[in-house]
Amino acid sequence: MTQRAAHRLAPGTSVHVRVPASSANLGPGFDSIGLALGIWDECTATVTDDPGLVIEVEGQGAGDVPLDERHLVYRSMLTAWDHLDPADAVEVPRGLHLRCRNVVPHGRGLGSSATAIVTGIAAAQGLSRASERDDRPFDLAFTNDIASMVEGHPDNASASVHGGMTLSWSDDPGETAKAATTTVRVPLHPDVVPVVFIPSETLSTAKARSVLPSHVRLADAAYNSARAALLVHAMRHAPEHLLSATQERLHQEARRPSYPHSMELVDALRREGHAAVISGAGPSVLVLATTTTADAVLDHAGAPGEPSSWKALAPGVPGEGVIVREVTT
Amino acid sequence: MTQRAAHRLAPGTSVHVRVPASSANLGPGFDSIGLALGIWDECTATVTDDPGLVIEVEGQGAGDVPLDERHLVYRSMLTAWDHLDPADAVEVPRGLHLRCRNVVPHGRGLGSSATAIVTGIAAAQGLSRASERDDRPFDLAFTNDIASMVEGHPDNASASVHGGMTLSWSDDPGETAKAATTTVRVPLHPDVVPVVFIPSETLSTAKARSVLPSHVRLADAAYNSARAALLVHAMRHAPEHLLSATQERLHQEARRPSYPHSMELVDALRREGHAAVISGAGPSVLVLATTTTADAVLDHAGAPGEPSSWKALAPGVPGEGVIVREVTT
Repeated sequence: MTQRAAHRLAPGTSVHVRVPASSANLGPGFDSIGLALGIWDECTATVTDDPGLVIEVEGQGAGDVPLDERHLVYRSMLTAWDHLDPADAVEVPRGLHLRCRNVVPHGRGLGSSATAIVTGIAAAQGLSRASERDDRPFDLAFTNDIASMVEGHPDNASASVHGGMTLSWSDDPGETAKAATTTVRVPLHPDVVPVVFIPSETLSTAKARSVLPSHVRLADAAYNSARAALLVHAMRHAPEHLLSATQERLHQEARRPSYPHSMELVDALRREGHAAVISGAGPSVLVLATTTTADAVLDHAGAPGEPSSWKALAPGVPGEGVIVREVTT
Repeated sequence: MTQRAAHRLAPGTSVHVRVPASSANLGPGFDSIGLALGIWDECTATVTDDPGLVIEVEGQGAGDVPLDERHLVYRSMLTAWDHLDPADAVEVPRGLHLRCRNVVPHGRGLGSSATAIVTGIAAAQGLSRASERDDRPFDLAFTNDIASMVEGHPDNASASVHGGMTLSWSDDPGETAKAATTTVRVPLHPDVVPVVFIPSETLSTAKARSVLPSHVRLADAAYNSARAALLVHAMRHAPEHLLSATQERLHQEARRPSYPHSMELVDALRREGHAAVISGAGPSVLVLATTTTADAVLDHAGAPGEPSSWKALAPGVPGEGVIVREVTT
């Protein structure tokens, strides 16, 4: 670990971070609309006297993810420290202990990479501020910008950062001073109840992911834009239009070969009138149910073919995203 | 005029119809989002004892539009009568007098064809009900459906029918029972002030309209969808995002050769931070200004090159669309 900047983190400084899962690519909101889900990864980051990096992982990914400098939470911490304002800048600590408890399943389209990235950025910022006894509010915009940079698409991490439903975009450089990501939160109608179907198996890694086409028909682009507009209206004010608002023509059908069973479940649910979509890049399925339909949707688990068992849950939508608190011992 | 159905309209029956102008293709809402504008066409339709069709037109289009069975208001009346429920069905009257006062300029992208079509449908329905002393509420959904059918795109007429900002779509036939157009109204934030720039000349009819491409890049379709979603959010809740929300990649740039001066004006206004777009299919320019910027935008008239004189006005957004009332003499 090399020295990068000014302040030195005091050994013993420790923060605890909680980050919610998310469904990105929400229906017609490909690469732009995300929804936070009440499934939380947690991590405690502590600066230690002893030099070296110690990473412990329990839960999802334990035994699979690397426990060294390649760990995604740690790499995201380094990126964040690299981008902190000079006033906030810290030396990368010589000793660091990460203890992560993962609940968000990996490889299911529920944003587990985004939660790791957001965890790292939040922990880096939190440690810097805790060490300096800086009580400014946690900088969500910084977290969002760095996470979007690491992820490559703004919607993947925004919902985990902000909670709720998020709409993110990057302005044309010519029109505004900033080209960074902007995110707005769209409050949800109280009747909206997301239900997630998680398959027991991940996608086979040997199976190549279907590639999206480079171009789409103009009519499909217009169709998709109208639904994205409607989705914002329906989620906040008019849940009765959610079935129409989740019709989309940019990504799901092209990727059907990657997750045929997920698409069968989407099709079956939609035929019954439920607003089902692929969560993120799949293979989980998200249904934008309502207080009156959620039970019927949950009962659907296990019905369609392979993979035969889906875990269905209604995790709720957290009203806030990443939460950082200092740990005092 | 041939007999088509049941009831006979009583001579002397008369209705007065008012229909507002509109900007269709609103920014990223190509073929889906429209905005009604407080510029009104009016028409009085009266069943006469004397057989024959008499059409008088004053104002916009006087001397240009045909004054016989080819007149768009009259043709739309025939279409509407063809589609009325059997219970409402009427004979096409043997004598009819139309007196139209047109204020919406023709060939400027302000929906003058849509106002004529909506006028005809509303007049046909209004005469039927007035003659039958039927006091059911005027059927806006019927008017919207027939107008969309005549226009070919749902957004062109919806704003004139419903007033305000409208979002329209047609569901996939497989998913819902109906394939007809659905329209929702999106209430506007009170700070939004549309300003319209109308060129003194219409587009040269000899100049072929640029054709839109059949396909667009997937990235542009995603970009456009995000802005359409943002437009609904910004117009109702967050006018500060209107500049971003009116970035679009489906129609304006491809048609630039059709209205180069309009695009110059759009570019100039946007560089100053104003949310300028092409109105409908052009060449008028619409700016989604606010209470604090409207005066500065209005002052912009006449600044850029040919056509040298733009008429700028802030017509307001009517809270309702087509209005029909019985005329009693």
